[in-house]
Amino acid sequence: MLLSKLFIPITKDLPAEAKIKSHQLMLRTGMIRQSSAGIYSWLPLGFKVMKKIEKIVREEQNNIGAQEMLMPTIQPADIWKESGRYDDYGEEMLRISDRQKREMLYGPTNEEQITEIFRSSVKSYKLLPQIFYHIQWKFRDELRPRFGVMRCREFYMKDAYSFDLTENEAVHSYNKMFYAYLKTFQRLGLKSIPMKAETGPIGGDLSHEFIILADTGESKIFADKKIFDIKVEEFKNNESSLKKMRENFSKYYAVTDDKFKKDEFDKNVKKSDQLQTKGIEVGHIFYFGDKYSKPMNCSVDNKDGKKTFVKMGSYGIGVSRLVAAIIEAKYNNEKMKWPISVSPFDVVIIPSINKNDNSNLKKATKLYLELKKNNIDVLLDDIDENLANKFKKHDLLGIPFQIIIGSKSQDDEFEFKEIDGKSKMLNSNNITKELKKYFV
Amino acid sequence: MLLSKLFIPITKDLPAEAKIKSHQLMLRTGMIRQSSAGIYSWLPLGFKVMKKIEKIVREEQNNIGAQEMLMPTIQPADIWKESGRYDDYGEEMLRISDRQKREMLYGPTNEEQITEIFRSSVKSYKLLPQIFYHIQWKFRDELRPRFGVMRCREFYMKDAYSFDLTENEAVHSYNKMFYAYLKTFQRLGLKSIPMKAETGPIGGDLSHEFIILADTGESKIFADKKIFDIKVEEFKNNESSLKKMRENFSKYYAVTDDKFKKDEFDKNVKKSDQLQTKGIEVGHIFYFGDKYSKPMNCSVDNKDGKKTFVKMGSYGIGVSRLVAAIIEAKYNNEKMKWPISVSPFDVVIIPSINKNDNSNLKKATKLYLELKKNNIDVLLDDIDENLANKFKKHDLLGIPFQIIIGSKSQDDEFEFKEIDGKSKMLNSNNITKELKKYFV
Repeated sequence: MLLSKLFIPITKDLPAEAKIKSHQLMLRTGMIRQSSAGIYSWLPLGFKVMKKIEKIVREEQNNIGAQEMLMPTIQPADIWKESGRYDDYGEEMLRISDRQKREMLYGPTNEEQITEIFRSSVKSYKLLPQIFYHIQWKFRDELRPRFGVMRCREFYMKDAYSFDLTENEAVHSYNKMFYAYLKTFQRLGLKSIPMKAETGPIGGDLSHEFIILADTGESKIFADKKIFDIKVEEFKNNESSLKKMRENFSKYYAVTDDKFKKDEFDKNVKKSDQLQTKGIEVGHIFYFGDKYSKPMNCSVDNKDGKKTFVKMGSYGIGVSRLVAAIIEAKYNNEKMKWPISVSPFDVVIIPSINKNDNSNLKKATKLYLELKKNNIDVLLDDIDENLANKFKKHDLLGIPFQIIIGSKSQDDEFEFKEIDGKSKMLNSNNITKELKKYFV
Repeated sequence: MLLSKLFIPITKDLPAEAKIKSHQLMLRTGMIRQSSAGIYSWLPLGFKVMKKIEKIVREEQNNIGAQEMLMPTIQPADIWKESGRYDDYGEEMLRISDRQKREMLYGPTNEEQITEIFRSSVKSYKLLPQIFYHIQWKFRDELRPRFGVMRCREFYMKDAYSFDLTENEAVHSYNKMFYAYLKTFQRLGLKSIPMKAETGPIGGDLSHEFIILADTGESKIFADKKIFDIKVEEFKNNESSLKKMRENFSKYYAVTDDKFKKDEFDKNVKKSDQLQTKGIEVGHIFYFGDKYSKPMNCSVDNKDGKKTFVKMGSYGIGVSRLVAAIIEAKYNNEKMKWPISVSPFDVVIIPSINKNDNSNLKKATKLYLELKKNNIDVLLDDIDENLANKFKKHDLLGIPFQIIIGSKSQDDEFEFKEIDGKSKMLNSNNITKELKKYFV
């Protein structure tokens, strides 16, 4: 893609309400544009990052055997009345009346809807265990939407729902999702900590939230640094291994400030291992047994032919929120670097251009076509602007690899660098080879 | 995927309102489930087909240089008041009032929203020409939603918007999209006819709808058969070639019944070339100049520094509707065959199983793992059911290739067939080879 053609409207004057750095960066690099309070359009650059995150989330759901489907955004009020949450949910639920005056709502979550689908078609334990997920837009009518896509009203979320016959099996489904979440955040280049959590309006008796470290995060966290020594890759997707994995995590102290008690922290964690920082919630998982299946009469016949309410869990990851969360974790001192797995482009070519000499642009274009031919997703900064300004701009765009074509370049040798690393001179063949290690 | 684990709740007793065959088949094969009137959940099988269609639509948009973004589903009423459509749109627009009593709506289309984004950031002709698209859920509050996802309320649509400086350039953008649409429908295995159309509530002075042939279609069509002799692949994505392509199409008579005049038809089309059939609209494109840019004050500076209202077009493809449209075109006499490009699975293995002998299931499982290893998306019908019933079921599922493991199979030789073709005996190597021609 040529930068001159990429629709990336960069805001130079930030609006006053853009208070956190992800919101600022997303506006400054034209990733999003506000449509109305708490509702955003995703412009090409932001859209690409979000789609890459979505793909990783999807792959890790598929890896644990979850089946993808898609529920609609607009739900009938009836099912929420059955579960008892229609009145409880309060003003955050966007209530809608259609032309026939039927009570509808824009789904903030989907426990009721998936329970309705399940009960209408599954009658026997034989289809169990089962996990379904979808990645769909949700709406929560926040009183004061703020922080850009971090706390917005219309947001993109992966939510999954597990169905099991027994509590034991349900806990295994829970553990599988716990595992998938750790792997997901790892692939996104994030350090995540699973923390025991309150179940809130979803309900139930077992819950973890997944917090990623970011020193500008919304919640204070207190943890034992040893928790980072647990290696997800050492566990396998089977019952005993996943059980052990979760036990390992629960050994270490890790809480947000609402649960923090200083004496407990000091008692349980060595001074040198005490981590006090901030974090952002990017995932939340719940086990809630028959909280929905019972009032909604969702049962299957067990092996003895006896009707049994299915045991359910639900599991959310904020896909749109993750775009901002990654920025909060990775953007510092006017410099961004996207994790390689979700960067909007693989590499950017930055030629020094001026009106009287377009030889660098010519070289750049040749290299650009060469890289494209090799399926490298390359951006060419073909804009006539001085190099210092270009570098500033690309510090914000955060594309992890740069090829600089300026005074140092000779013939087929170009300055190649990882955005925060040292540059080396490489020819186009070797640049292609280098990039293919990460991409393609 | 094992069929016993696939969530594919097959409805045997069809609801009375399922009157057309796509609606019936989608319910009978568990592709969708109604959530409320005109609103559906997409279950795994339907979801897979829709995603494959979406991918093809996306690729052909990218091929003509359109940039993908994503606008939200909920829009502010303000911009619709600016364009003058807020009152015009009538009750089909789902109007929403949020907790702050702000007037919002669930977008039925996005001309206003994209114009607002464009005008706020593009000030010069230099970014032109430009085409943006998104694939997003829309809502039209149909008075009588019916025919399943063919005429539903919440639907998935690709809509694109072009921005140009002059009418000539805008018509070129229009022609590019015309070309992309023909290629899209071709890749979906459909015969499509572009027809001059009314512009309706979108407005403007140039419009085509793309109709695919299906003898159960909603509109009668009258056309010159010679129109199918035009080969899209003979045209190139450049101005003169695309102009010629559109001229070629306009040479041939092709209208829906609202424009049909028998004497014109007889005068212009040889009897033997007269085609009278039915069709389904799956795409609609519009050129409407400054219909939105003028009232919404969306202008750029031209080369002489003079403010000029941009010339716009909009271009829709009903992605969710296409799932049903393909069924209408391909499903006959209780037999479905998905086009290879969008089939929910590449191939199904159908072993004859009974309680006393699972040797066929064993063979089937071995072959299943072999195919999976080769990245073939294979379904294994591991259900204990007689072969006759299995065949009936797979006639409906419509997976284009079948491997039957029954009395005819010997050692490593299996009956392999395209669903409507003759079977041949092949070993697993040759089956893999055969399938790799189409997939992977």
